[in-house]
Amino acid sequence: MSNAKAPLPNNPEGIDQDQFLTVLSREQALARFEAALFPRPVPAESQLLADALGRVLAGDVVAPIDVPPFDRSNVDGFAVRSADLAMAGEAAPVRLMLNDEVIACGTAPARPVLSGTATSIATGGPVPRGADAIVMVEHTQPAGPRAIEIRRAASPGQFVSYAGSDIARGEALLRAGTLIGSREIGMLAACGISQVPVARAPRVAVISTGDELVQPGKPLRPAAIYDTNGAIVTAAVSENGGEAVFLGAIADDESQLEAAMREALAASDMLVLSGGTSKGAGDLSHRIIARLGKPGIIAHGVALKPGKPLCLAVCDGKPVVILPGFPTSAMFTFHDMIVPVLRRMAGLPPRSDARVTAKVPVRIASELGRTEFVMVSLVEGDGGLIAYPSGKGSGAITSFAQADGFLKIDALADQMPAGTEAEVTLFTPHVRVPDLVIVGSHCTGLDLVTAPLARAGLVVRSIAVGSLGGLAAARRGECDFAPIHLFDEKSESYNTPYLADGLELVPGWRRMQGIVFRKGDKRFEGLSAQAAVRAALADPACIMVNRNQGAGTRILIDRLLGDIRPDGYWNQPRSHNAVAAAVAQHRADWGMTIAPVAQAAGLGFIPLAEEHYDFALVTARKQRPAVQAFLKALASDEGRAALVSAGFRPV
Amino acid sequence: MSNAKAPLPNNPEGIDQDQFLTVLSREQALARFEAALFPRPVPAESQLLADALGRVLAGDVVAPIDVPPFDRSNVDGFAVRSADLAMAGEAAPVRLMLNDEVIACGTAPARPVLSGTATSIATGGPVPRGADAIVMVEHTQPAGPRAIEIRRAASPGQFVSYAGSDIARGEALLRAGTLIGSREIGMLAACGISQVPVARAPRVAVISTGDELVQPGKPLRPAAIYDTNGAIVTAAVSENGGEAVFLGAIADDESQLEAAMREALAASDMLVLSGGTSKGAGDLSHRIIARLGKPGIIAHGVALKPGKPLCLAVCDGKPVVILPGFPTSAMFTFHDMIVPVLRRMAGLPPRSDARVTAKVPVRIASELGRTEFVMVSLVEGDGGLIAYPSGKGSGAITSFAQADGFLKIDALADQMPAGTEAEVTLFTPHVRVPDLVIVGSHCTGLDLVTAPLARAGLVVRSIAVGSLGGLAAARRGECDFAPIHLFDEKSESYNTPYLADGLELVPGWRRMQGIVFRKGDKRFEGLSAQAAVRAALADPACIMVNRNQGAGTRILIDRLLGDIRPDGYWNQPRSHNAVAAAVAQHRADWGMTIAPVAQAAGLGFIPLAEEHYDFALVTARKQRPAVQAFLKALASDEGRAALVSAGFRPV
Repeated sequence: MSNAKAPLPNNPEGIDQDQFLTVLSREQALARFEAALFPRPVPAESQLLADALGRVLAGDVVAPIDVPPFDRSNVDGFAVRSADLAMAGEAAPVRLMLNDEVIACGTAPARPVLSGTATSIATGGPVPRGADAIVMVEHTQPAGPRAIEIRRAASPGQFVSYAGSDIARGEALLRAGTLIGSREIGMLAACGISQVPVARAPRVAVISTGDELVQPGKPLRPAAIYDTNGAIVTAAVSENGGEAVFLGAIADDESQLEAAMREALAASDMLVLSGGTSKGAGDLSHRIIARLGKPGIIAHGVALKPGKPLCLAVCDGKPVVILPGFPTSAMFTFHDMIVPVLRRMAGLPPRSDARVTAKVPVRIASELGRTEFVMVSLVEGDGGLIAYPSGKGSGAITSFAQADGFLKIDALADQMPAGTEAEVTLFTPHVRVPDLVIVGSHCTGLDLVTAPLARAGLVVRSIAVGSLGGLAAARRGECDFAPIHLFDEKSESYNTPYLADGLELVPGWRRMQGIVFRKGDKRFEGLSAQAAVRAALADPACIMVNRNQGAGTRILIDRLLGDIRPDGYWNQPRSHNAVAAAVAQHRADWGMTIAPVAQAAGLGFIPLAEEHYDFALVTARKQRPAVQAFLKALASDEGRAALVSAGFRPV
Repeated sequence: MSNAKAPLPNNPEGIDQDQFLTVLSREQALARFEAALFPRPVPAESQLLADALGRVLAGDVVAPIDVPPFDRSNVDGFAVRSADLAMAGEAAPVRLMLNDEVIACGTAPARPVLSGTATSIATGGPVPRGADAIVMVEHTQPAGPRAIEIRRAASPGQFVSYAGSDIARGEALLRAGTLIGSREIGMLAACGISQVPVARAPRVAVISTGDELVQPGKPLRPAAIYDTNGAIVTAAVSENGGEAVFLGAIADDESQLEAAMREALAASDMLVLSGGTSKGAGDLSHRIIARLGKPGIIAHGVALKPGKPLCLAVCDGKPVVILPGFPTSAMFTFHDMIVPVLRRMAGLPPRSDARVTAKVPVRIASELGRTEFVMVSLVEGDGGLIAYPSGKGSGAITSFAQADGFLKIDALADQMPAGTEAEVTLFTPHVRVPDLVIVGSHCTGLDLVTAPLARAGLVVRSIAVGSLGGLAAARRGECDFAPIHLFDEKSESYNTPYLADGLELVPGWRRMQGIVFRKGDKRFEGLSAQAAVRAALADPACIMVNRNQGAGTRILIDRLLGDIRPDGYWNQPRSHNAVAAAVAQHRADWGMTIAPVAQAAGLGFIPLAEEHYDFALVTARKQRPAVQAFLKALASDEGRAALVSAGFRPV
């Protein structure tokens, strides 16, 4: 943080320099950032109306003409003088002579309507001089070659739209800051406007930093990860009125990074960096920012979770931002702290986020002293909306990307108790309440079974909280069913012993569990599971990967091992996939997973025992259409075939 | 309708042909249209991820890798074996030897962590073989050149994100039909996906028909109007997943129009025509459609208001639509009947419109036998939302473009009584309740005064219902104030006599009323108002334009005329602009309007008497910030100068 001592913009003497060494509150940081950037004019450019959709008006638009531009007939009929028809009635037809003219759309009338005459006029035609009302053709009868008869009075102005009655010349048609949608395009077109002043979208350069980043589409090196933030920040800039220019990932090399940042800033209105998850990488970017322009760093470290490492700077009037490296931290801080500034630069009004109230089903721990934002998924419970906190943390992209919104825990609270009614700010305009809610243990087989539901337009939400978490949710009535694979040691059976009142078991499929090892590992090839474990225990260089306490697979492993705790026993990931990855990547030499996962990872597999993956169905919800659709899909030939071909055994 | 006899697609014998001669209900028409078009596959194409924002996934995407791809450290620290630290405590430090390796981001570990050792690891680094937990660097002390000391136990898995814990290989990442936003881009990038299957946007050709149409930007001929529907339909197609191609306005010439329609349909997936307000023009398009392909016209005439003349056809599998010519009819039917089909062709889920409940302040008449949709503007009243029906009708673009949404009156009802609590379907995701609500008589001066409020981000809604309508709304507490210019003949004074309890007068500005005539008209040049009227009455060829009953200006005119009812007396438009347009366009030779309007229309003007344009303020709302901002703007030098330069006289 050694370079964070730039003076405050309004404080050129730098009296308060030390405050940059401390972490600012979210509100302080945002206020300082905005004070250093605004007010500033929104640069404008002229845009063809046909290309203006989605742009923002940079100035007020005043209607240059009346719409309609003339007194217009709203029907097909005859232009008349209403005074001529004052005495007309069923028994007292009035005869009007037809003028030698037919006013079509687009035809300027040439002759006046004198008393006792009428002129044929089409919908949209200009009302001729002298006429003050239109009689519908249906309400007239021909009366000889050049005359009509009318048997009802006409009120003055009848079926006439007067000039300027839609839009009056001189009125403020649209105000600066209006987002131009199809309706605004219509109003502008109606006035004949073909060029509009729009805000020039701020150019935002996006740079990812980090030696470990690989761009999507390229092969992934060992220990490398795909650059997620580059793509998501670039897209989020576009969604919020900016013109994003993604410059790729720059390695952690000071001179190379500085050159890239200088070039990007010179060509852009704003620079956003992301990456630099490790301390060293972050320091690099901060050191460079301090050299880029005045006033420099405004806030470095914000009492915000996720997002503490956020760095906000202003260099020669341009915002420069270093987002935290973790994807959910990066996106949440971008959404919360950068989007308001970007929208203001783009001339857009502040985003108006929808809010709903939802009950938190579980206690959420929080760190004292930091405002904490918790990403949540919403489902409909018996008593209203339920907000499930994402369990994946800020290092996961899905914590943000699959959330419906977030709730806030005050800096002074160390938790949010279960049962709290919390306000949830939505990421989308509406809550789309899912049609089918599945809470429990996830399995890729589940995605196969729900595929036809998704194709039929049903929204399926699957929240992975493990078997026991799913059972608890099912008992609370928060889901339609919970997928479980719980082994009861006493009864030596799966799942049924765990059912509570109000739940019933829907049999799912069997997943063959077995020992995995790298193909070609001579220690295990051709052995039974028991023999493989004996071989592993006999080799001191051999390391295992275990599973978490509570997993059915863990019970199987413990039975095979007895009291032995070999190397790797405490490596206890929570999923079948993590076991396969550990073995494939030489973190371990053997472990226990399920056949489809071993197959996908290209590992050798020794089958041992089938796991029962079933569904604890909430009986009260059984008749719901989406539940019925799921049960039908589960029993269908198509569903069973998909399960079989993925390596599962439907029952 | 002679060509409407194409057989139903599921009814090749055409048994029910006659039904096309009758008007269908909205639901029948939509059901038949959809039955003739669906199911059909959504054509897919591959799109670079960087260009996929806003597109729709055409297929399910399965995660090809685990994210993270390896067991990853979440902090800067040391990879350890947790068993080594089982006994560690404040009084019992454990010393671990450092392995000769530093695992940075992107570095694959080369050495295992054996018991009694630790490896330095950065955030994001892959956990090495043997290690099962990470200790934060803050919780360690250096203990010699190649060792560290740790005084607390580490739980297995501490600060490790396991492979696949964010996204598991094989899981259904995103489903077909998902609209790709920044969050979806992030999930795809995290998996390394750089190409996605997206729905090919349906190409929609848009043709305007009508000799009277002029494209925006071109000069307007007499009797011509600007083509509004072409631009708005084109934009609305883009907003709903289509790729719009606007082919301009085609004249009402059968062979020319047929050639254009055939060419457009051959190159597109859908054809939308609009225009043809008059009966003859409409028949032209219908005749052509009948020759374009089978099955042809599906519905011609729908019991829907606005929108009765809507024509739906399917020609060789492609939808062909003729929208009604009136802009609000065109847009409402497009929104209601065409958008569902377009979105389905584009692979998009149905639009989910938000709904609110609002009270209708006035009776709304409705035609029996047609489902009527009434465009409304929402304001906040004392007891909740108030829905003001648009008074401008379906011929106006602003009825649709300025509405917040619409309410529905059943086909069997002939009215909706004042006070009804109606469900309003919103055009936008949220109600943006205006900060300042002005209901009454509109004046372009008002736009000048509210300009600074708009610049400050306040939403000002002005609903033009005339002075008396505004007073009624103010008495009901539905607005902040009502602009009025009501002359009381008894007291010979403006506005004050009309105030009710709870209202107070805020003086506005004076508008000079006078006689308008075309410059150069020798009959009026140089005369006083009284003399000008005498001159007009003396010339039998001279025609006037009057104002509506109730207008203050009308009282002035009637005083000048006494009992005389000259030619044009019954031509009674409701606005100053319409009077100026009538004179400028030779519909009339003289009338009475206000100076700024006469000036804008380039007319001669003889001043007569000032009209008082004041504000009836709802006292209970006086302290609202937006009201205070308005009062401040009204009194400001800037506001007064703007009024003066536009021809008004502030008081």
